[in-house]
Amino acid sequence: MKARIHVYLKPGVLDPQGVAVATSLNHLGFDEVTAARQGKLIELDLDGADADAAQARVKEMCDKLLANPVIESYDIELSA
Amino acid sequence: MKARIHVYLKPGVLDPQGVAVATSLNHLGFDEVTAARQGKLIELDLDGADADAAQARVKEMCDKLLANPVIESYDIELSA
Repeated sequence: MKARIHVYLKPGVLDPQGVAVATSLNHLGFDEVTAARQGKLIELDLDGADADAAQARVKEMCDKLLANPVIESYDIELSA
Repeated sequence: MKARIHVYLKPGVLDPQGVAVATSLNHLGFDEVTAARQGKLIELDLDGADADAAQARVKEMCDKLLANPVIESYDIELSA
């Protein structure tokens, strides 16, 4: 089973990487870009086939290690 | 229009961040994790409503700035 986790900064948290991306894209001529945010993408390979159990375990991993719950949110996608 | 871009290392490229994540999760007792890879998640806000044009422009942004095509792949999701 595979898990794909998106970790992104909560709205209102300063995101200097995202600002740098938006500014650089504007400088390259991509004027349609009005804002950018940058986050993390984590893909895990997991043993076991129980999706409900895996979802709960991956949520625990996010809370303990993968995301900082003070400033970051995350979402989890599982696939077989 | 919003674009969500996943940038990840191509298979075979050494991913020390991913190895560190997998090792740390194992040490925390998450023994079901057999491998991890870490990539980037970039979200863009775009002016304009033409999805086909936006797809082409975002692909150009990825090739020029957001991904290193030698070692990274990317995929693009557009939403209204």
